[in-house]
Amino acid sequence: MKIAFVVFEDLTALDFIGVYDAVTRLKTMNFIPELDWEICSFTERVVDGTGLIFTPTKVNEPLDTYDLVIVPGGFGTRKLVDDHAFIEWLGTSKPCKLKASVCTGSLLLGSAGFLQGKSATTHPRAFNNLKKYCTVVDDRIVDEGDVITAKGVSSSIDLGLYLCEKLAGFDAKEKIRIQMDYQTN
Amino acid sequence: MKIAFVVFEDLTALDFIGVYDAVTRLKTMNFIPELDWEICSFTERVVDGTGLIFTPTKVNEPLDTYDLVIVPGGFGTRKLVDDHAFIEWLGTSKPCKLKASVCTGSLLLGSAGFLQGKSATTHPRAFNNLKKYCTVVDDRIVDEGDVITAKGVSSSIDLGLYLCEKLAGFDAKEKIRIQMDYQTN
Repeated sequence: MKIAFVVFEDLTALDFIGVYDAVTRLKTMNFIPELDWEICSFTERVVDGTGLIFTPTKVNEPLDTYDLVIVPGGFGTRKLVDDHAFIEWLGTSKPCKLKASVCTGSLLLGSAGFLQGKSATTHPRAFNNLKKYCTVVDDRIVDEGDVITAKGVSSSIDLGLYLCEKLAGFDAKEKIRIQMDYQTN
Repeated sequence: MKIAFVVFEDLTALDFIGVYDAVTRLKTMNFIPELDWEICSFTERVVDGTGLIFTPTKVNEPLDTYDLVIVPGGFGTRKLVDDHAFIEWLGTSKPCKLKASVCTGSLLLGSAGFLQGKSATTHPRAFNNLKKYCTVVDDRIVDEGDVITAKGVSSSIDLGLYLCEKLAGFDAKEKIRIQMDYQTN
């Protein structure tokens, strides 16, 4: 089981880290000991909207070898949806069984053609932008089987726990949720 | 208004990023345009418990010039509470008007002597460790005026929003909460 956490210039850090915290606990808390992941970027430089630097572990390498690809959002997505080189790179994840996004990360999945004929969600301020790619649903998590999208920024944690349950079951998810001290509504 | 986000080896990334996301929006959403911050570490190397690298903007520089110092938790705190050089460095934040912590970050505040005679909270699994420094309270946020402590990992977002309200008022906090798409219980 191998996960690609996609990062890019001007991402929202919490979009990335919320789901990252939950999902990586599948390994650190020993539910899926063989779980592996990489921080995948198209460019060497990855700085969030506030100047915080992230360090990718893979740069401009194809994404087709991962089981799960997770894409955060952020203001950077506004430009990247029209960046052919970036979208072509993201498109290399086409064979991956599962893609997931947080916030405006779904715009990138849409631009890469992964939302065609599907329903998806995004940050409420980006519902209009998402409409050109798919049917927009105002839910916290939208699961279309091979593509799962989450709503705004903090829904990253909800996506993380949702994926934990999907990959390792309800009990594992609950133990991770409690360890994260997260209260669901 | 100047904030030090403290980072260290083997921190929990979400402890840091939850409060970071909320508080930095005070500037990016223009509520406190003159807000400034640094990512402060005692050591050059800052890697979280899963291998994720963070890049500090200030290394081993005194913390006494900041208005607010925010300390995350993580397994690294278990060693750092007894690391005299680290605690001495953290102790340079003594003159700062406000200190805050997430999760086991409160153990570091305790070891630095900042919790004497006060109440504080931490991750539920670390309640016993915190007892040697102060009165332990099982609340999401414990505000002692000059020291504010938050409970486990995901309470980082709650601390962030709490600080937003304290620094910029209820309306600013609400706008930030909505932009973060965060639902409070």
